[in-house]
Amino acid sequence: MVTVKSLQARYSEYHQQQQFNQEPQHLYAPVNYILGLGGKRLRPVMLLMACNIFREEIDAALPAAFAVEIFHNFTLLHDDIMDDAPLRRGHQTVHTLYDVNTGILSGDVMLIYAYQYLGQVAYAQPQRLLEIFNAVAIGVCEGQQFDMDFENQSTVSIEAYINMIRLKTAVLLAGGMQMGALIGGASATEAQHIYDFGLNVGIAFQLQDDILDTFGDPAKFGKKVGGDIVQNKKTYLVLKALELADSATAAELNSLMNTPTTDEAAKIAMVKNLFNQLQVREAAEVVQNDYLQRAHAALDALNVTPDRLSNLRQLADQLMGREV
Amino acid sequence: MVTVKSLQARYSEYHQQQQFNQEPQHLYAPVNYILGLGGKRLRPVMLLMACNIFREEIDAALPAAFAVEIFHNFTLLHDDIMDDAPLRRGHQTVHTLYDVNTGILSGDVMLIYAYQYLGQVAYAQPQRLLEIFNAVAIGVCEGQQFDMDFENQSTVSIEAYINMIRLKTAVLLAGGMQMGALIGGASATEAQHIYDFGLNVGIAFQLQDDILDTFGDPAKFGKKVGGDIVQNKKTYLVLKALELADSATAAELNSLMNTPTTDEAAKIAMVKNLFNQLQVREAAEVVQNDYLQRAHAALDALNVTPDRLSNLRQLADQLMGREV
Repeated sequence: MVTVKSLQARYSEYHQQQQFNQEPQHLYAPVNYILGLGGKRLRPVMLLMACNIFREEIDAALPAAFAVEIFHNFTLLHDDIMDDAPLRRGHQTVHTLYDVNTGILSGDVMLIYAYQYLGQVAYAQPQRLLEIFNAVAIGVCEGQQFDMDFENQSTVSIEAYINMIRLKTAVLLAGGMQMGALIGGASATEAQHIYDFGLNVGIAFQLQDDILDTFGDPAKFGKKVGGDIVQNKKTYLVLKALELADSATAAELNSLMNTPTTDEAAKIAMVKNLFNQLQVREAAEVVQNDYLQRAHAALDALNVTPDRLSNLRQLADQLMGREV
Repeated sequence: MVTVKSLQARYSEYHQQQQFNQEPQHLYAPVNYILGLGGKRLRPVMLLMACNIFREEIDAALPAAFAVEIFHNFTLLHDDIMDDAPLRRGHQTVHTLYDVNTGILSGDVMLIYAYQYLGQVAYAQPQRLLEIFNAVAIGVCEGQQFDMDFENQSTVSIEAYINMIRLKTAVLLAGGMQMGALIGGASATEAQHIYDFGLNVGIAFQLQDDILDTFGDPAKFGKKVGGDIVQNKKTYLVLKALELADSATAAELNSLMNTPTTDEAAKIAMVKNLFNQLQVREAAEVVQNDYLQRAHAALDALNVTPDRLSNLRQLADQLMGREV
């Protein structure tokens, strides 16, 4: 069993070796730029962890891990254009540093390279990997569209919201881990349990992100605390609050979200106050914990010795406990 | 041997059956829209023709033909955003009818579906098809970047220009036909000859497009004649003119291209006049014909009865003779 630290180091080394130094430079410089910005690299590392459950030697899964990471960075690049975001991981976004056209085209070629790396994986059923990856990639686009649609909808059901984060965030983690498991020699059924683990962890992880964006410790949270409230994002907290509130309180929350204000701090405080009254943080944590339990249950179904799952279980718990 | 008309009809039928009616509608409506705009569908039909050289039954190649067509339409969609083009095939472009974000994301999902259809092809070596398709798709992005780079370069060599149109236009035709040949049962060597045919036809076809944009019959040419001149595009005609011109004439042409004017007709007439003096149309036709001959020579290398190649040879000649 390889330690998480070793997996991270092995992935980092491989990642850094993938340099796009070919011509035209204007196409590939932004690719090197965004891939060099760092980030947690959670998706490729969890893919390798899934592989490592079934096989000691994880090198065969490295191109798949990179495929997942370059795909993830492609989505960040195009999402940043759509949101006109100035910063990514504390640095200028690609379309800000270069321009929008460069961002579109360099993103496109990254998506293609994801398939190119996937094609490099030595695995007996390459069609199966392609199938999983296609389903993931389509899901992520659909999730992004649902997310954009929600901005213009007056009401969003919690069910629709969970489906959106499932597509936008969780399927990539899930499908990546499923591919890792298969490359490691898992049966289709075993790989499906790994997928279920990734899917439920992914949903729990996004719920955690919603909670931290409002209730996180500013010193520890990477982004600005309260950002979702300022942007009037329909997060799980908002949707749950609207569900639990009486009509007067719901009207108050809707009014806060629909009225432009220059006093961001006051707005954050007022919305947080409503959230506290309605105990939506606690409600979100119950649901989050439920998804985390489902993730662990998916691992319980595997017929492997518990020690092979300890890394994964520990990481899942760590992800949920992070920086609250 | 299937007639070209039958191949076109079979492809059209298949194309129209591929409807994207799933949710979210805002993601897929633009996909149906652009795929419904028509166009010559040259790439999928030539892929099927390549298949048909080696096998009577071409149905196995239909998903690959659609993959090539949906990929081509993805590039048109994103290129139209980059050029901020208002019209495509006489209709509003996707980003004009919807918005830029929709154009980016719907284009992305089309690129993914190209791979999804490719994955549907029943072929013994799916990895080989993926490899060819990846090389094509990367080439097309590189070609588009070179094309954008040329706008900001004061000088472009004819060699660099030919390389750009090879990547931007020809490799998709070539790689598509290579996949069609392989699916039809061609050997790797035979499929390479088909690739060479497609590549040379593609380059000749783009040179023809350059010629027609300036010298075409306005009644027959689909786009506005003189458009390249108005947009100061560095076409083969311009680059050849600059190569052949003495320094005074070259300065005159550069001045015409670098000076804004409101009298488009006068500008077109003056540039055309320079082209006529320098006989660049004739020079372009010599080169174009050379590529066409190379295309035919690639077919000569195939060990099949001449009748199996007649459709392809005829279409190539027709493409060059179109509407001058």
